[in-house]
Amino acid sequence: MFKRPRGTRDLLPDEMEGRRRVEALLRESFERYGYQEVQTPTFEHLELITAKSGEEITKHLYSFKDKSDRNLALRPELSAPTIRLYVNELRNRPKPRKLYYFENCFRYERTQKGRYREFWQAGVELVGSNRAEAEAEVVALSMDCLANVGLKKYSLIIGNLGILRAILNHYKIPEDKQNHIFSLLDKKDLEGLQHFLNQESMSQQAKVTLWNLLKRQKGSERIGLTELESGLNDETKEIIKSELENFKEFLNLLEGFGVTNYEIDFLIARGLDYYTGMVFEIFADGLGAQNQICGGGTFSLVKLMGGGDLPSCGFAFGFDRLMLALESQNQLPTASAVPQVFVVPESWKMLNRAIEIVSFLRKEVACDLEIMGRKLDKSLSYADAEGIPYVLIVSEEAEGDNVILKNMQTGEQKLMNLNEVSDAIG
Amino acid sequence: MFKRPRGTRDLLPDEMEGRRRVEALLRESFERYGYQEVQTPTFEHLELITAKSGEEITKHLYSFKDKSDRNLALRPELSAPTIRLYVNELRNRPKPRKLYYFENCFRYERTQKGRYREFWQAGVELVGSNRAEAEAEVVALSMDCLANVGLKKYSLIIGNLGILRAILNHYKIPEDKQNHIFSLLDKKDLEGLQHFLNQESMSQQAKVTLWNLLKRQKGSERIGLTELESGLNDETKEIIKSELENFKEFLNLLEGFGVTNYEIDFLIARGLDYYTGMVFEIFADGLGAQNQICGGGTFSLVKLMGGGDLPSCGFAFGFDRLMLALESQNQLPTASAVPQVFVVPESWKMLNRAIEIVSFLRKEVACDLEIMGRKLDKSLSYADAEGIPYVLIVSEEAEGDNVILKNMQTGEQKLMNLNEVSDAIG
Repeated sequence: MFKRPRGTRDLLPDEMEGRRRVEALLRESFERYGYQEVQTPTFEHLELITAKSGEEITKHLYSFKDKSDRNLALRPELSAPTIRLYVNELRNRPKPRKLYYFENCFRYERTQKGRYREFWQAGVELVGSNRAEAEAEVVALSMDCLANVGLKKYSLIIGNLGILRAILNHYKIPEDKQNHIFSLLDKKDLEGLQHFLNQESMSQQAKVTLWNLLKRQKGSERIGLTELESGLNDETKEIIKSELENFKEFLNLLEGFGVTNYEIDFLIARGLDYYTGMVFEIFADGLGAQNQICGGGTFSLVKLMGGGDLPSCGFAFGFDRLMLALESQNQLPTASAVPQVFVVPESWKMLNRAIEIVSFLRKEVACDLEIMGRKLDKSLSYADAEGIPYVLIVSEEAEGDNVILKNMQTGEQKLMNLNEVSDAIG
Repeated sequence: MFKRPRGTRDLLPDEMEGRRRVEALLRESFERYGYQEVQTPTFEHLELITAKSGEEITKHLYSFKDKSDRNLALRPELSAPTIRLYVNELRNRPKPRKLYYFENCFRYERTQKGRYREFWQAGVELVGSNRAEAEAEVVALSMDCLANVGLKKYSLIIGNLGILRAILNHYKIPEDKQNHIFSLLDKKDLEGLQHFLNQESMSQQAKVTLWNLLKRQKGSERIGLTELESGLNDETKEIIKSELENFKEFLNLLEGFGVTNYEIDFLIARGLDYYTGMVFEIFADGLGAQNQICGGGTFSLVKLMGGGDLPSCGFAFGFDRLMLALESQNQLPTASAVPQVFVVPESWKMLNRAIEIVSFLRKEVACDLEIMGRKLDKSLSYADAEGIPYVLIVSEEAEGDNVILKNMQTGEQKLMNLNEVSDAIG
């Protein structure tokens, strides 16, 4: 017997049915917001992946050479491929482009609950705007998705890298140090940050300003924007004035979209250098350590892909984790892939008639046909084991267009005209 | 700028929309026939692929080692993975299992029209039966798929390897020679077959019997079953009696499913050793050399995957070729991924009201929102360029819940209540 590769999954009918239903709801939200689907190849040139995610990512890549010695890799995420598609195929179209994807990604990582080596992402990229209304619409869409799929318990955490960058730029902190600070933030390593600031030769003023913005006792509540502002000195307020105003306008418009339940956290850094402004993450209750189900923000990936300095924003849901979250919160759609009716000829000579009947019913209803040559009682056992709700018995005794419909739950049998069947099974 | 890998495609919104619609119609057919979706990993252990397809396939594989030195390969087709899933996960469930898939496959081949290195297959596997009614239902389903997606011009060609095998087994032709004969048949190489038969040391009787069954002038019409039978001598008839009766029962039941437009061709061999009985192929008009859009039949793949001697039948559509065939026959669904309405604030201060309105409309309609901060005339140009049919102008002058709806095709503007919009855009 052959096994599937480690860290991958075989998805069986009932699970697939649930996944397809949730997928359809996500697509509905994306399309209601004016996003259009694109699809990129499953593998890309290795350089595309490392250009976006750094050399570090190669440790987690499925990379290989094709028969012409090209260095390829299975995509570990979909932002870079989607923006590459934008740059190659859509850069001359009017702005904005609103693109969505629903595809699989691959990372060679230690497997655990909520982390698979092949996993699905559902996400959007809005290319051409980083205005407050664009950012607000993107976050609102992520909330619309969760409302649509029925997830109830989660936290939306919003940060802003633009404000941090304004301070760092004001004090002329070089880019490599900025990136180091962001990576410490991304790990929520406040101690490490304090240590780094103490050691660094930046001005005391810069250190105090940064620390004022970022200090937070572990385990304490996140602070609101008003509280944050009131704790800042005048100089800091002046440095971040324009970024802060943008951020407040974003929050104002977000409220216009009906999104009021969020927390602000300047420690959200997304760990990636190309995020420039608003960033956000969504965490689901009941998932344990792997509880982040969505991440996104405003970024400058188009430039990195060779397409000019065009702002964009977007997010991606981890689809598999979203499914786990729905399950753990008892919100999974009750999905059954089983057909409604099982058509069974009472004897071999009714087979042709059974074929006529099943062909007629299949115009409207998902039907199965007895194709194992079983006797009626065996067919009924099969339907019972499968959970098929109705068995239609094609009997010699039923005259004309009449058939016998058996309700498998109640056991009741009714003689009826074939035309009445689809109403009877509701 | 980064390019996509050679032989792959970037699928843009309108094409994706068309593909999703055809995909949905195929799924509808599969599910109406009682098939349930499964999904297997994108890569499998290399040995699974070679076990099914032979070492020859490795020339066309994307194969690689993972970080733990496992030999993996991107799947080149979906029968073997699907049957592996059956053996691993479903073999203890009642029979039959009716499974379908819609997934991508990968082959490193010379690229040409209708042949890509990443391509999609939509197919079914019916595990547990090779009875005539199972075979007939499988072929009927392939026809239902084509009717459902609207393909008009194609040929269904049906063969039967069981009849050929009966003759070859009767004359005790060893398996390697049988397979060589099938591979010649698969290439339609009748000359090569004649040459092989002349050289081989099998009985003259065997050669005559085979040749009687298979001889056919190139370019001539395929012969019907009646004509075929009348040309066979009594000994041949006796040898193939039981297989021929099965085949006739299959054709009788196929007619019951309403499938009468087909040709019989015993040269269809599917090139693969594990086909055992009925085989069929579908060719679309207007596609040139790569015109086969579907292939299938009855096979014994379960055994090869370590799951016991269980018969099964199935088929796979080449989805990309099916799309090309629909296009060349002008039957592609007219698909547009563009939203219905573009909501534009007439001035900056109407932005919050525009957000309220777009949020209201999105409960029912796909809407875009002006997020570029453009003035009205620029917004209208954008909507025009995009082909968005309606622009909703959020004006200071419109009172209460009134908005201005502009039909972009006629240029007509109407003042109306917000509640009337979704009716007005029909």
